[in-house]
Amino acid sequence: MEIDILEGVFDANEKIARENEALFKEKRVLAMNLMASPGAGKTSLISATLERLQDNLRIGVIEGDIASNVDAEKLKTYDIQIVQINTGGACHLDANMIRQALEHMDLDAMDLLVIENVGNLVCPAEFKLGEGLRAMILSVAEGHDKPLKYPLMFSDSQVLVVNKTDLIGMGDFDMDELHETVEKMNPEITIFDLSCRTGDGLDAWTDWLYEKVKSSTK
Amino acid sequence: MEIDILEGVFDANEKIARENEALFKEKRVLAMNLMASPGAGKTSLISATLERLQDNLRIGVIEGDIASNVDAEKLKTYDIQIVQINTGGACHLDANMIRQALEHMDLDAMDLLVIENVGNLVCPAEFKLGEGLRAMILSVAEGHDKPLKYPLMFSDSQVLVVNKTDLIGMGDFDMDELHETVEKMNPEITIFDLSCRTGDGLDAWTDWLYEKVKSSTK
Repeated sequence: MEIDILEGVFDANEKIARENEALFKEKRVLAMNLMASPGAGKTSLISATLERLQDNLRIGVIEGDIASNVDAEKLKTYDIQIVQINTGGACHLDANMIRQALEHMDLDAMDLLVIENVGNLVCPAEFKLGEGLRAMILSVAEGHDKPLKYPLMFSDSQVLVVNKTDLIGMGDFDMDELHETVEKMNPEITIFDLSCRTGDGLDAWTDWLYEKVKSSTK
Repeated sequence: MEIDILEGVFDANEKIARENEALFKEKRVLAMNLMASPGAGKTSLISATLERLQDNLRIGVIEGDIASNVDAEKLKTYDIQIVQINTGGACHLDANMIRQALEHMDLDAMDLLVIENVGNLVCPAEFKLGEGLRAMILSVAEGHDKPLKYPLMFSDSQVLVVNKTDLIGMGDFDMDELHETVEKMNPEITIFDLSCRTGDGLDAWTDWLYEKVKSSTK
């Protein structure tokens, strides 16, 4: 009985996600669902990406948070379309929240829509939003054993950004072991190691993302 | 309708949590629900606590994970009662999982039961387990703005451990601002700043926990 209810929720979400996906395709927008634990660096990566790509792409941002507009405030300095979603307690975004946010955005004036999900390594992976690109961040500070413990997001993402590489050496983080574990779970995944703080590795990420947008929206 | 269903789930959990609580009281065990983001240092804090308190207290551990027994393996070197719960996808422990785990433990031979919840700063805060102590960890690497973004856990915990103080200075983490924000949301909270890696501040935490166990179980 409970399972039926949950399946109903997932089915309803899936249906709206497909509608969002069709809309993004029609409007030639690449929507990127960006998922990670709290504090892994989602907003920092968005800022760094805006710095590097805002002159070449028209970028919009949806900020998902349980409460507060801390992250949206951080991005206010950029001249972009930005919509804040407060989930009011919910631990992930869902497709219907995105549909509502899109009513406040002009997709005709956008190439890339970055959707910052709620900080959570579990639940966001279960709810498709209609995105064309599923991206996740793991911070070096979280440890290299996380893929084994939170397998769904690592298995299901198309790109993994390993952030805070400037902290390597401060603990026992093993980058080779991380890559090996993730690639075994998800052979198709693309991985970027970078530091939003120092800037190391950021260009490779934004070059890749730029090409991804260009090839997805032409 | 959906809200009714969810309330049913919460009510059922609440009832079992009260039964667990009564059992802990009868058996004179302090149960600590330990919550945090992935990689904040839950297992490290448990190891450090075992090192310091295992000669003076009889400690048991319940390890909650979505998948894998990585954490339970790390604790295998200690001569303690330990039970692994794999939630099979669920993003938090609930009272019924604890009740089932307790069937495999001898509470008559225990003073402190540490329950390591699933790594998640959101959902675990919504499900009482019957614990006598609600504890959480925030890692310095996660940033000082997290209480505003994930208010429930910070408002509802009795003790906050700020871990990875050895990373202060590697980013823009502001410890004073963190304490001020948390104490405004939750004036009764006790906060410990420490580093499981260097050992700094650990004695203050274990001294406090030891006294808490003694006063709760006499």
